[in-house]
Amino acid sequence: MKALVFNGTLHFSDTYPTPRLKKDEALIKISMAGICSTDLEILKGYRSFRGVPGHEFVGIVEKVNGGNQKLVGKRVVGEINCGCGTCDYCRRGLENHCPHRTVIGIEGRNGVFAEYVALPVKNLHNIPDTMSDEEAVFVEPLAAAFEILEQVQIKSDDRILVLGDGKLGILCGLVLGTKDARVLVAGKHSDKLDSVKKQGIESVIIDTLPARKEYDIVVEATGSPHGLQNALQFVKPRGTLIMKTTVARSTPMNLSSIVVDEIHVVGSRCGPFVPALKALVNRKIDVRPLITEIIPFSRWRRAVVRARDRNSLKIIMDMRGAGLNKRL
Amino acid sequence: MKALVFNGTLHFSDTYPTPRLKKDEALIKISMAGICSTDLEILKGYRSFRGVPGHEFVGIVEKVNGGNQKLVGKRVVGEINCGCGTCDYCRRGLENHCPHRTVIGIEGRNGVFAEYVALPVKNLHNIPDTMSDEEAVFVEPLAAAFEILEQVQIKSDDRILVLGDGKLGILCGLVLGTKDARVLVAGKHSDKLDSVKKQGIESVIIDTLPARKEYDIVVEATGSPHGLQNALQFVKPRGTLIMKTTVARSTPMNLSSIVVDEIHVVGSRCGPFVPALKALVNRKIDVRPLITEIIPFSRWRRAVVRARDRNSLKIIMDMRGAGLNKRL
Repeated sequence: MKALVFNGTLHFSDTYPTPRLKKDEALIKISMAGICSTDLEILKGYRSFRGVPGHEFVGIVEKVNGGNQKLVGKRVVGEINCGCGTCDYCRRGLENHCPHRTVIGIEGRNGVFAEYVALPVKNLHNIPDTMSDEEAVFVEPLAAAFEILEQVQIKSDDRILVLGDGKLGILCGLVLGTKDARVLVAGKHSDKLDSVKKQGIESVIIDTLPARKEYDIVVEATGSPHGLQNALQFVKPRGTLIMKTTVARSTPMNLSSIVVDEIHVVGSRCGPFVPALKALVNRKIDVRPLITEIIPFSRWRRAVVRARDRNSLKIIMDMRGAGLNKRL
Repeated sequence: MKALVFNGTLHFSDTYPTPRLKKDEALIKISMAGICSTDLEILKGYRSFRGVPGHEFVGIVEKVNGGNQKLVGKRVVGEINCGCGTCDYCRRGLENHCPHRTVIGIEGRNGVFAEYVALPVKNLHNIPDTMSDEEAVFVEPLAAAFEILEQVQIKSDDRILVLGDGKLGILCGLVLGTKDARVLVAGKHSDKLDSVKKQGIESVIIDTLPARKEYDIVVEATGSPHGLQNALQFVKPRGTLIMKTTVARSTPMNLSSIVVDEIHVVGSRCGPFVPALKALVNRKIDVRPLITEIIPFSRWRRAVVRARDRNSLKIIMDMRGAGLNKRL
């Protein structure tokens, strides 16, 4: 099959082996794949991943090995963590934290920058016909933003600051904006911030925001190695700092203020697909303004360059190679 | 009065002005003062403090300006944070986090490495006659260890690892050891670890401890700038990391595993005096084995050198200049 392969550098192969299915796995033909900041970190060496990167996708089930054959032909998105199924974490429904897990395109398992991906059937979610492919690509990153609501109780008088106007920062702002609290998204790009402003959420250029410890909850989604240190300037004593950024490189930090101000730092990664799907179906959140460009798979080099561009939001690869999706 | 003064370097003055009392403050003649790792960090520049350092003490009330005159002559210990009394934090009883607070020997207020200190009357706690001066000096750091129990729910099947066999690490081990959970203290010095072992708590030399993510709660009390990064090797996914270390200098870190493993990092500073006093009165915790040496104030240089020595635990200065306390 056609696939992008990372082995220290990223290259294209059109003879990469199509995934072989284990029991209760499905073979999915990828329709569209989103490029995430984690993918770009992987290309810098994050988690020493080797193989086919990519984990945001929508596709059509082509084959199922055992289990529910009704899935064949269905349009699906998929949860990216594949647990062992038998450990303590898996038994508690926390496959995301299974110590033996594989994660498509991130850890020990090929991802979606290819014609096909294999995933356990239980990871798949059907997509309703009303949802376009390019919206469906957002289910995974939107679920990651919804994870915050699983971890932190939001009170109606909370002041919430989201740092970062990248894809994840904006999605976090949109998700928190569905709650009854005061949300402010701070970033560097007025055009990116416009996409949250249009959905009724306040935004500000970060350089104009005074460094005062006055937010109950701060979400750090800048993607910068300095992000955590900077974010501490804004968190109230006894406040909560949600950490979303994962980066490949180390940076000097002094985190004494976490102790002095008794901050709760909450690491936050993958999240629940169901509320993300619902929010898209009900149009509570509109992700379409976040799409910068849809690029055919054959032009993958351009897609990666565009994804790296700080002025871009979501770059989607059309894996059918058919160019721009008509439904956009 | 006699005082140690830090203005970039530490020196002795015998003409330092005795504190002038504001309303509802007490003047306390210091009997004994403990040297804490935070004091040593302050001598390295931590928080840019200038003035008389020191915050662990026991003393006798000599004068009260307004309020309860019955306190005069009483033996007391004192909470170190002095709130403004009017802000949101102070009204919620969180003077420790008042943004306008002063902290004796740490922030905007002279400390206890002197003949006298001034503190608000409401900060003081009487010490029962059964408690020796050298035990009373431990109330403040022991309260800091008890803070953990205010912040984290300990379950009976929790596996808890305390990293650090310095004063605070050992106190945290002893406090957590009062709960129904499995506690292990890891450090570098077998003689220091003996002082927890004698109180029935397991200990281990850190180099022999395998770096496995198998502890529900890890307390980082190494005092090392690298401590947080190292501690993450031991915390279970979705586990809790209590941060106790405050240091003056920055160090390179990559904290992506906080995100990947969705760790809760809980900054933990000063704590409640009442449970600390009770634990000492009831002999649930014996701090006396932690005293390395009691040194007369006149030999303060030796006291600081001894406190810096990695083989020392608590160094106490006898501020009455009378040498070793007979009750030891």
